[in-house]
Amino acid sequence: VDREIVIALTRKMLVDQPEKLTAVGVSFGGPVDFDRGGVRLSHHVPGWEEFPLRDALQSEFGVPTMVDNDANAGALGEWKYGAGQGCKSLLYMTVSTGVGGGWIINGEVYRGAQGMAGEIGHTIVDPNGPLCVCGRRGCVEVLACGPAIARRARERLEAEPNGGKILRELMLGDPSNVTAELVSRAAVNGDTLAEEVLVGAAADLGSGIGNALSLMNPQRVVLGGGVIKAGATYLAAVQRAAQGNTLPEIRAGIVAAALEDDAPLWGAVALAEGLMG
Amino acid sequence: VDREIVIALTRKMLVDQPEKLTAVGVSFGGPVDFDRGGVRLSHHVPGWEEFPLRDALQSEFGVPTMVDNDANAGALGEWKYGAGQGCKSLLYMTVSTGVGGGWIINGEVYRGAQGMAGEIGHTIVDPNGPLCVCGRRGCVEVLACGPAIARRARERLEAEPNGGKILRELMLGDPSNVTAELVSRAAVNGDTLAEEVLVGAAADLGSGIGNALSLMNPQRVVLGGGVIKAGATYLAAVQRAAQGNTLPEIRAGIVAAALEDDAPLWGAVALAEGLMG
Repeated sequence: VDREIVIALTRKMLVDQPEKLTAVGVSFGGPVDFDRGGVRLSHHVPGWEEFPLRDALQSEFGVPTMVDNDANAGALGEWKYGAGQGCKSLLYMTVSTGVGGGWIINGEVYRGAQGMAGEIGHTIVDPNGPLCVCGRRGCVEVLACGPAIARRARERLEAEPNGGKILRELMLGDPSNVTAELVSRAAVNGDTLAEEVLVGAAADLGSGIGNALSLMNPQRVVLGGGVIKAGATYLAAVQRAAQGNTLPEIRAGIVAAALEDDAPLWGAVALAEGLMG
Repeated sequence: VDREIVIALTRKMLVDQPEKLTAVGVSFGGPVDFDRGGVRLSHHVPGWEEFPLRDALQSEFGVPTMVDNDANAGALGEWKYGAGQGCKSLLYMTVSTGVGGGWIINGEVYRGAQGMAGEIGHTIVDPNGPLCVCGRRGCVEVLACGPAIARRARERLEAEPNGGKILRELMLGDPSNVTAELVSRAAVNGDTLAEEVLVGAAADLGSGIGNALSLMNPQRVVLGGGVIKAGATYLAAVQRAAQGNTLPEIRAGIVAAALEDDAPLWGAVALAEGLMG
């Protein structure tokens, strides 16, 4: 979607609504310079490079505006309205096409020195693992995001011609049809290969979470993003690996996001509410 | 040292001093329950298990008292009086017989849900690495603390009968004499094997720091403890590995502690000052 169209749609939507507009909060799907309210870029859509989104919306609508990236917004949303309510410290993670993260520390979003805090997706859990687009080997994202689960399943299918019967049926003879969703569907239906792939990816995610627990001892870890919908076996494997990779004195509730895909949107609501005093 | 003797010595020291005692701050070398002011245990000295140190000192001296563990106290000391002054976020690490850590987040010590935050020593950088007393493989401590450097040197000396000439001289024919200090002295004097061991341990420490940078993006990392005195080559190897193990957008100054071994003591001073309002 083109940047101009997004703003035009927003204008139409906001002008049409009956209530008076008092503040705007934005969850942006890419790195944001929070203090300056500017988008750094979108990894998926061109045209957003160094765009001063906060200032543009403020002058467009004449109300105070706040912009944050979707991982921080998701953390804020789950903390204020979802599975993290009442927590003093919280790590929110989104596991989908990538693996992102955001922190609540002492009841507020913690962004770090360059606004880059929460990059758990690029912490390394296996220095001999596969190469990530980030240029390093074995980071959480390259082992545990949705496309990684699909890749791991394809590798297993190729290596084991007799394995993954149900997954093979679901992919309709074409390995390029394999997605994380298809792998979890096959696993739920009893496909052993698919379940092993899913549990393997969950274990690698859990290893990364275990390191985060040792380092920060957060009260809760809230998992969002499409991959988390893979089900109870997946979540249990994440929890087991996380607890197994940290000290026994450290305990954290590791739970699924309550607001599911809307966590970042509720975070945007919380940003706007913060501006309304 | 027996617990009773420590308190008796403290009593004598404080009673003898000319100025009026108004507050007490304590840096304890072991896990502390900060909120309750109690020592959980000392890993090295028996008799401290679940001892209510804050309350004992408060009733002994009749002044407000605060007790924290030495890693948190070191973080506070370096932040208030040392190499971390003016930082909004700071990771302090002590690399000696173990590897400990403490956080300053938004200008105060961050302790985590069970008071265990900062356990960077037990984050895992190589799941196939050697086994640690913590029960896991390849954590930062088992690869990079002082005894780990000595162990790595002894392994290399055994595997390479012709290597480590200078180190062999320094150890006076007995491998059990090898310490991290001896390895750094040999390295400074041109021993290639010793330098490789030191740089290897520095790289593993740096890998752990790199993960901490990705996760928290702190403004500064301050390195204390005896191993850090190994010199410029060692520190440069830590910095290189840390930066190489995180995203290029993330930058942190990684510096040696300014207060050296006294960082935790200055932290205790800061704790007492906090009580004086």
